[in-house]
Amino acid sequence: MFEDLKQAALDANLALKDSGLVILTWGNASAIDRKRGVVAIKPSGVAYDKLDLDSIVVVDMEGNVIEGALRPSSDTQTHLSIYRRFPEVGGVVHTHSTYAVAWAQAGKAIPNIGTTHSDTFHADVPCTREMTAEEIAGGYELYTGDLLAECFGGINPMHTPGALVRHHGPFTWGRTAAEAVENAVILEEVAHMAYLTFAINPGATMNPLIIDKHYYRKHGKNASYGQIPTPGEE
Amino acid sequence: MFEDLKQAALDANLALKDSGLVILTWGNASAIDRKRGVVAIKPSGVAYDKLDLDSIVVVDMEGNVIEGALRPSSDTQTHLSIYRRFPEVGGVVHTHSTYAVAWAQAGKAIPNIGTTHSDTFHADVPCTREMTAEEIAGGYELYTGDLLAECFGGINPMHTPGALVRHHGPFTWGRTAAEAVENAVILEEVAHMAYLTFAINPGATMNPLIIDKHYYRKHGKNASYGQIPTPGEE
Amino acid sequence: MFEDLKQAALDANLALKDSGLVILTWGNASAIDRKRGVVAIKPSGVAYDKLDLDSIVVVDMEGNVIEGALRPSSDTQTHLSIYRRFPEVGGVVHTHSTYAVAWAQAGKAIPNIGTTHSDTFHADVPCTREMTAEEIAGGYELYTGDLLAECFGGINPMHTPGALVRHHGPFTWGRTAAEAVENAVILEEVAHMAYLTFAINPGATMNPLIIDKHYYRKHGKNASYGQIPTPGEE
Amino acid sequence: MFEDLKQAALDANLALKDSGLVILTWGNASAIDRKRGVVAIKPSGVAYDKLDLDSIVVVDMEGNVIEGALRPSSDTQTHLSIYRRFPEVGGVVHTHSTYAVAWAQAGKAIPNIGTTHSDTFHADVPCTREMTAEEIAGGYELYTGDLLAECFGGINPMHTPGALVRHHGPFTWGRTAAEAVENAVILEEVAHMAYLTFAINPGATMNPLIIDKHYYRKHGKNASYGQIPTPGEE
Repeated sequence: MFEDLKQAALDANLALKDSGLVILTWGNASAIDRKRGVVAIKPSGVAYDKLDLDSIVVVDMEGNVIEGALRPSSDTQTHLSIYRRFPEVGGVVHTHSTYAVAWAQAGKAIPNIGTTHSDTFHADVPCTREMTAEEIAGGYELYTGDLLAECFGGINPMHTPGALVRHHGPFTWGRTAAEAVENAVILEEVAHMAYLTFAINPGATMNPLIIDKHYYRKHGKNASYGQIPTPGEE
Repeated sequence: MFEDLKQAALDANLALKDSGLVILTWGNASAIDRKRGVVAIKPSGVAYDKLDLDSIVVVDMEGNVIEGALRPSSDTQTHLSIYRRFPEVGGVVHTHSTYAVAWAQAGKAIPNIGTTHSDTFHADVPCTREMTAEEIAGGYELYTGDLLAECFGGINPMHTPGALVRHHGPFTWGRTAAEAVENAVILEEVAHMAYLTFAINPGATMNPLIIDKHYYRKHGKNASYGQIPTPGEE
Repeated sequence: MFEDLKQAALDANLALKDSGLVILTWGNASAIDRKRGVVAIKPSGVAYDKLDLDSIVVVDMEGNVIEGALRPSSDTQTHLSIYRRFPEVGGVVHTHSTYAVAWAQAGKAIPNIGTTHSDTFHADVPCTREMTAEEIAGGYELYTGDLLAECFGGINPMHTPGALVRHHGPFTWGRTAAEAVENAVILEEVAHMAYLTFAINPGATMNPLIIDKHYYRKHGKNASYGQIPTPGEE
Repeated sequence: MFEDLKQAALDANLALKDSGLVILTWGNASAIDRKRGVVAIKPSGVAYDKLDLDSIVVVDMEGNVIEGALRPSSDTQTHLSIYRRFPEVGGVVHTHSTYAVAWAQAGKAIPNIGTTHSDTFHADVPCTREMTAEEIAGGYELYTGDLLAECFGGINPMHTPGALVRHHGPFTWGRTAAEAVENAVILEEVAHMAYLTFAINPGATMNPLIIDKHYYRKHGKNASYGQIPTPGEE
């Protein structure tokens, strides 16, 4: 029934493993079919080399299993919250990649401090606020997504397709699950670069005009980067 | 006589090599058969690509060789001490993995500063106290295990399955030797993440409610992570 | 028509990918034919594993496409500016390699702090000044090359074959495109070493006599390094 | 004539390449035949994948080429100086490995700050003094070896088989060329660990009793590490 959607989720999870961002069973990727209102996601705690189409779990927007024999990722409610809040998102990825986690554990947004960041993330990559005791007890995974969305009051989530969950680690997204994986790779790299930059120069600054130049060189109707027609926007 | 036990020890040592945590002949893994009171362990100073079932050494709980032609790991008395002190442990691993060693050389426990740590290690990963001149002269490897156990006065060693030996490096354990290897991999990763976190924010803090949320999401009777039935607890 | 030139550019781009310096579609290499006044360069946003001779774009010195169906790299005007300013350059490479980018984002030249640097880069590797709003609006890629050339008022660009574009990342060059790739590899390594050196000793200093000893051991008419005849100068 | 010696030097150079410590043509290994008073060494500036038995150069103790068509490594005089000063040395290795170079560029000895260091290097790994202008002009490579030997006034070079050349990088040695390569691998690892240790705890200290315990557990007549008979001492 959901063959294509499951294939997109499977491909994204396997690409995540190949990216080197995840060890053991950590991390998960999902894809949404907005017309049918269903999400395909990695099963919880299953090794990447055991993943196949049958092990991918399909859930509805409340997280009820529609297809599949396994339990979905323990982060499923966070994925669903992101899909609900950000209507243009087609795929979501969560990892414990080392440098992005370090910024999340430090409780700090990753400052946009260079063109590598600007090419993909227009704003600083935000970090969620501290969760209250009530929120932790009342639906931790759901509130994780809600707090994440809270960060995007003044930021277009499709122009800054990622955020850090405080104490935890990064979530990224994109128009497709494949793009969400690519954004996870880029986020880890810019987290690494920002770490090094401030170690070399604690007072490093960025030029907002350069941010716009690079972001809009790759995105939007005046983009000059890449080929025409492009796959998606880019 | 001890085929299965030796196979478990061999598999764990080979998994250790594959993990990338060890170079040269560094590191060792062992497995215990509590009914028969014997431990199978890596021989001392033998290259990993020369290891086979015949080279694995079986010792009794005092360290006398029961089976095998080679000398057991020079860390054997430390392994035995851990098995004696922690009755639920089924496998022990020792490595010189880079970041965990750095914390051990710094003489500091690895603070639980994030959910990656909390998912596997409930408490800070402790670091042993300075050994006295008498202890060093009187049975260095044995006292290494004893000092390590000393750290777990108020900590359940099965909930925090690892510790740092001051000046030296990490030991991890688990219900099986395979789990001890996995915990060695995770310990190195959280040591790396903690190092980076405090470099970014020397005042980084953790929320104890998040620690419990993550630890008990993966462990114990209310665990929701992974599949049912699970391999072991997890 | 431009088979050899396109092959040199293709080989350099593939060598760049093999070097581990680039991820995704980041980075680009070009080669110049000075007699015919044309440059062969990577197409914009094309994956390295899709690159072949047909996808390489040949442009004239103003950047007009002479041969090829794809759009040239968005950094083409920067490459052309470097070729115009530095008449001995035969190949140019741009990457987002992690440590070189960190120095560029920090807005600092990479100090010549050791013999690994001196063997290939005689001076500090300079970092361009802040670009003005007028320059950003009036021809960002072109001015990038011009600001880069500005740094070489008192420095021979063939003796220090690389520079950092502030906020952005490194450009390197050489007598050939292959040499430009090799210099990109060396620049990343010396950027890494310099980062570590100042972390260990913020007051580290270099001896100018050692710089000369090493640079001229490998370069120029009294060079003693390598074999005779050498490929190119080295 | 020197088949075995050249094979030992070739094997060591290829092992060096496989170790991941060297990039491009950097680094070199040599082996000595003390009875015949000759040394086999890597040719200067030749790529590792082009190395074969014929390309290895044999020189006498003054550096005159005895066999081979190529020029020997530009560091040959440093190797010869080490062989002359340290009569038990059978092989010498030089690399530009990242962390060891960083300590050399910082102009600091690598402190013995843990058991990984103690297992192989009994003392701190020393760093040579600043070379005078007269020494640089009068025989740079020769004086490099002499300054290195100067560091071992009170240190047994066979118990601490490595040193840092200030501004430059590490040299290691051993009873054989193979052992010198292994010591280069260990030196890089302890350089990395020491870097991290002081970043975590600038006041980290070592216990001299633990140094002796670990060093003599692996070396000398009371060694308990490894198997009997051992290859060489270890």
